[in-house]
Amino acid sequence: MGSVKRIGVLTGGGDSPGINAALRAIVRRAKPLGLDVVGFRDGWRGAVEDDLVPLGLPDVGGILHVGGTILGTSRTNPFQKDPATGAWTPTAKVDRILDTLKRRQVDALIPIGGDDTLGVAHRLASHGVRAVGIPQTIDNDIGGTDYAIGFHSALAVVTDALDRLHTTAHAHHRVLIVEVMGRDAGWIAILGGLAGGADVILSPEQPFSVGEVREALQRRLDAGRRFSIIVVAEGARPVELGSVPLAAEGRVDAFGHPQLGGIGYWLASELEKAGLPLTPRVTVLSYLQRGGVATPTDRLIATRFGVAAVEFAAAGKYDVMVALHGPRVVAVPLGEALAGCPKPVGPEYLDLARNLGVR
Amino acid sequence: MGSVKRIGVLTGGGDSPGINAALRAIVRRAKPLGLDVVGFRDGWRGAVEDDLVPLGLPDVGGILHVGGTILGTSRTNPFQKDPATGAWTPTAKVDRILDTLKRRQVDALIPIGGDDTLGVAHRLASHGVRAVGIPQTIDNDIGGTDYAIGFHSALAVVTDALDRLHTTAHAHHRVLIVEVMGRDAGWIAILGGLAGGADVILSPEQPFSVGEVREALQRRLDAGRRFSIIVVAEGARPVELGSVPLAAEGRVDAFGHPQLGGIGYWLASELEKAGLPLTPRVTVLSYLQRGGVATPTDRLIATRFGVAAVEFAAAGKYDVMVALHGPRVVAVPLGEALAGCPKPVGPEYLDLARNLGVR
Amino acid sequence: MGSVKRIGVLTGGGDSPGINAALRAIVRRAKPLGLDVVGFRDGWRGAVEDDLVPLGLPDVGGILHVGGTILGTSRTNPFQKDPATGAWTPTAKVDRILDTLKRRQVDALIPIGGDDTLGVAHRLASHGVRAVGIPQTIDNDIGGTDYAIGFHSALAVVTDALDRLHTTAHAHHRVLIVEVMGRDAGWIAILGGLAGGADVILSPEQPFSVGEVREALQRRLDAGRRFSIIVVAEGARPVELGSVPLAAEGRVDAFGHPQLGGIGYWLASELEKAGLPLTPRVTVLSYLQRGGVATPTDRLIATRFGVAAVEFAAAGKYDVMVALHGPRVVAVPLGEALAGCPKPVGPEYLDLARNLGVR
Amino acid sequence: MGSVKRIGVLTGGGDSPGINAALRAIVRRAKPLGLDVVGFRDGWRGAVEDDLVPLGLPDVGGILHVGGTILGTSRTNPFQKDPATGAWTPTAKVDRILDTLKRRQVDALIPIGGDDTLGVAHRLASHGVRAVGIPQTIDNDIGGTDYAIGFHSALAVVTDALDRLHTTAHAHHRVLIVEVMGRDAGWIAILGGLAGGADVILSPEQPFSVGEVREALQRRLDAGRRFSIIVVAEGARPVELGSVPLAAEGRVDAFGHPQLGGIGYWLASELEKAGLPLTPRVTVLSYLQRGGVATPTDRLIATRFGVAAVEFAAAGKYDVMVALHGPRVVAVPLGEALAGCPKPVGPEYLDLARNLGVR
Repeated sequence: MGSVKRIGVLTGGGDSPGINAALRAIVRRAKPLGLDVVGFRDGWRGAVEDDLVPLGLPDVGGILHVGGTILGTSRTNPFQKDPATGAWTPTAKVDRILDTLKRRQVDALIPIGGDDTLGVAHRLASHGVRAVGIPQTIDNDIGGTDYAIGFHSALAVVTDALDRLHTTAHAHHRVLIVEVMGRDAGWIAILGGLAGGADVILSPEQPFSVGEVREALQRRLDAGRRFSIIVVAEGARPVELGSVPLAAEGRVDAFGHPQLGGIGYWLASELEKAGLPLTPRVTVLSYLQRGGVATPTDRLIATRFGVAAVEFAAAGKYDVMVALHGPRVVAVPLGEALAGCPKPVGPEYLDLARNLGVR
Repeated sequence: MGSVKRIGVLTGGGDSPGINAALRAIVRRAKPLGLDVVGFRDGWRGAVEDDLVPLGLPDVGGILHVGGTILGTSRTNPFQKDPATGAWTPTAKVDRILDTLKRRQVDALIPIGGDDTLGVAHRLASHGVRAVGIPQTIDNDIGGTDYAIGFHSALAVVTDALDRLHTTAHAHHRVLIVEVMGRDAGWIAILGGLAGGADVILSPEQPFSVGEVREALQRRLDAGRRFSIIVVAEGARPVELGSVPLAAEGRVDAFGHPQLGGIGYWLASELEKAGLPLTPRVTVLSYLQRGGVATPTDRLIATRFGVAAVEFAAAGKYDVMVALHGPRVVAVPLGEALAGCPKPVGPEYLDLARNLGVR
Repeated sequence: MGSVKRIGVLTGGGDSPGINAALRAIVRRAKPLGLDVVGFRDGWRGAVEDDLVPLGLPDVGGILHVGGTILGTSRTNPFQKDPATGAWTPTAKVDRILDTLKRRQVDALIPIGGDDTLGVAHRLASHGVRAVGIPQTIDNDIGGTDYAIGFHSALAVVTDALDRLHTTAHAHHRVLIVEVMGRDAGWIAILGGLAGGADVILSPEQPFSVGEVREALQRRLDAGRRFSIIVVAEGARPVELGSVPLAAEGRVDAFGHPQLGGIGYWLASELEKAGLPLTPRVTVLSYLQRGGVATPTDRLIATRFGVAAVEFAAAGKYDVMVALHGPRVVAVPLGEALAGCPKPVGPEYLDLARNLGVR
Repeated sequence: MGSVKRIGVLTGGGDSPGINAALRAIVRRAKPLGLDVVGFRDGWRGAVEDDLVPLGLPDVGGILHVGGTILGTSRTNPFQKDPATGAWTPTAKVDRILDTLKRRQVDALIPIGGDDTLGVAHRLASHGVRAVGIPQTIDNDIGGTDYAIGFHSALAVVTDALDRLHTTAHAHHRVLIVEVMGRDAGWIAILGGLAGGADVILSPEQPFSVGEVREALQRRLDAGRRFSIIVVAEGARPVELGSVPLAAEGRVDAFGHPQLGGIGYWLASELEKAGLPLTPRVTVLSYLQRGGVATPTDRLIATRFGVAAVEFAAAGKYDVMVALHGPRVVAVPLGEALAGCPKPVGPEYLDLARNLGVR
């Protein structure tokens, strides 16, 4: 296994602001180390189909703050999941990836993405692929790191939305429900709800009942508050529903995840049935949370991750993921990081919400 | 009819950013003219129930940019509408308003609101009430004026949302649907869609068919575009639905308007049924469009409206509405302005969209 | 003079957000009319040096909201001004422009810029060049139109800055001075100051004395106000200075205008000398006012201007400028528009400030 | 020393966004613990002059996101510094503070501020005052904690400014200089410059020479870059100046710190003298960096700090400062935290800048 001369980068899964900052950092760090960088288009699809572009300094000029990814993304997964056992087996696409890497003399990969994208990288390790993963997902549900790229930008969108809603909620007697993303973790809901001053926060970490929410709202009404703001995570689960999913059975989104959403409208309807004297109004932030300009924190995290990924690759550290541990950027084994998915919100924030009197 | 000594202001209907700027301007302009200002709480309810507060300079300090209304709002209407004829008849609340004005020596009213709030003011004229209305609604559907307070702030929210969605839509193959407000007018949808670069705009002014939207999206796919963004007004009506409302029959919101909403999810579902090869994702901006900080344009319009309303009142001009005609602020008869509701988007913007290749 | 087949666009002078929206509209409107569009780089320099690029739909994708100009800008002026008489005489560059237009078969020009850029277009008319100008300057000082592209975006920057400063000014006993742009007109200062709630606004339209400002601040101190915010236009002139310029004699900026700036620090120093008991702090917004994302209003104005410019060119209307008159876009003779430069702020806003108790 | 019943809070020094979030958290956490909260006005002045207000839940409603401090701030310091030795000796104001605390039965103090404000708290410990400090300063220069309240909000202002400047710098041939705050530490300059993509960053941590900056700019010109953006900290020191201060000798700001500022204009002038072929333009962000809405990160840090401070006080932990260590909030001895002031930017960010090719 010789030293690295050419690095291939790719961006998979749902995108988020900050990816481009990481790409820029990779290219800028690679140059003084004498490394080439190529970018595969649309995540693993580009590696399968030998669709790539050279990435030089001019290609990453002016993209530091821009959301999305200049490389595109897709749901291509070269492994297949056995629905019964959950085990992954390689498809013919794995060989095509190996061919591409050989033909293009790509010595190391830096895949940027969530558990799907990074999971592929980890499974490819046993096929001899050398990869340093960068965690990226607004959901912040990847193990082994304090934060993934994109989370702080989504947090800013949710907080800004709650600020806006406060001004109008205050003018009326209103219950406003905001449905946010996060899949099976409550990072966006809980930290966003705390930062935006929500009165009720419903997250996957803590099942809730409609009755309980109804009571919390009534307590506020009784205390003379004219309005309440509820943040509900797409993955929050009411005990009333048991295991019945909100969306149609078996429906999955473009990345193979069970499709979520709709909980906001469901909750509004149930609260009305439960006799709430105010009509709840629903806002669905949806893809707003993925879009826009990266926050400074996401740019700094992404820049540090990009630089560190190149340095780890140059130093021969593979099958690892760059990770933020407090103020430091470190390498954690990819398998370990993936085993920690989905990473739930920790007690420090659950306690904080409770201690502040937030449901 | 003596000269004015005390002005009563009230803010009714759905709120929007800029109301507080108008309140501030009213108080600041009244002072050098030697006029007192009192504020009724929660729209016409405060006038009915004699619930009012004095408004001096300190009360309007620091509120210039803040959304919402420091006076609160409500749906109280002292007139009753005959569902059959549409005619309005006074209730006992009208007498209570007249009592309040007499007891509190309020010589003139400045109601700030949409067609409901201003409609009350116009009907009260025949009861001897002297009022100068200020048009305020994010829907911008009030006749007789280029713009109402709040529209530009809602426009900014929609435009910003479209900017955000562009970055993420670009990274994926995506159709993103954004449902916006506007009731029976397309101001928010059309001007927001144009400012935000939407590919398809569906508004009440122009009925649409799902097939037509499906074709527009296909043309973009055929031209190699990876994504499309659709803005749909809550009041847009698909020909497929005929006169069947989207929401339950007879349902009304807090202000007595038929409740809208849901068209975004309906459209997504119909497009999938129509064989669109991409899953559309829906964002519902909802009350975000009412909230937040007022834009400079809304603050300037509101400030000019507030100053002019006081001056018209001091000059004995009543049963009028302040209005923006190009660069000038003028007084238009309230009845005339109301007769022009809901004011549709004019051909200059409908043509503009068509000439730019937007559906 | 045959019909138009190819339009050349160029962007000159100081840039501002909204230019790219106009370029996009020009290209999108030209296509269905069967017109080609080419873009000259860096303003008139590109026309002189035959430096141009074809502009098709892909070239203007994704630029709607982006500040700056994809064509670049420069200070090249093919005419020379006689310092004594102020008369302009053509240089050899005029012939080179005529050569370029002929060689490239450019039938009509759409220059986008301020008085310098549009002045060249007007003078070229007598050399047979057919041009439709688009007014663009954050200063909003071009005659014949309510607004130029860029003004509303600069207004938003100033207003946002004043909002920020209010929060911190309120916490301390502070006088904060904000120096803004605008050259010889007070549009940015006065409308920005009104929208941002400044306590004192100093603009070129109304000479001021330091003593007068000192007194206005003292009145606020005496009334118990803890802070004051002053907006001063770079072109505001204190009577104390007479005709002595603030900056070094004869110094000009990249566009040949006398260099302004420094008045903020000068005023802070003079106020301290005059015994103001608070130390004034100075913020210089400078090029922040030119940068960033265009506001919805600027995008709509720019889009309408771009579309109208193409339509006027196609209809054979030349030596005109597109202009906003109230809600309508019209063509005004270029010479007339230029004769109205610099357009001062009108009495409606000067009166407004005075009536609100703002110096 | 009995248990705590009433907590006094105060906010001193330069303010920053996030203080109000901390005040809200303190009040909301104190209530379920059965503790009263009072607020002293204008920092230590309120404690000296017995000027205080009770703080209940309604008092901290709606302030979560608002910049500034509802308690006001001042430069009052009850200790006096010996200019020769740097030692602090108590003045009569210390006794007045002790009297106030006794009379008002305030058992514990939570002072929120920078090294001055917290330094007073530490020195009062030997007079029997029990205090838990909360670090707050946009400069982020307090020892013992990863971050102080306010830093992330200032970072956002600087980053946003750099984004704006990039769009316009790109359109012209320009060198833009942005002067930022930070006193003797480069946190704002370096992290802001990295997040905003500055080409040159000048901070107190690394003395610079004009010649070196001139060369860095020339290298960019030679590489075909049309523009460069320089971030310079107010406390950055050019070797050319030696120990000569930029501002007048002995001048101090309202908080007793040597007055900084002016380095931006100085650098522009020196670069022109050094033959730079582009005229540099200067933006001075000044108090913009203190103002506006707190970012989500600052709100979360402030909320966690407020909650923890109450809990430490209730638990009898005094003469400490709440601090962020990675993801955890801990208590550090106040003396230790103060000994680490001013905390310089660490090598991880200095290296990062160098590795990215930023001066």
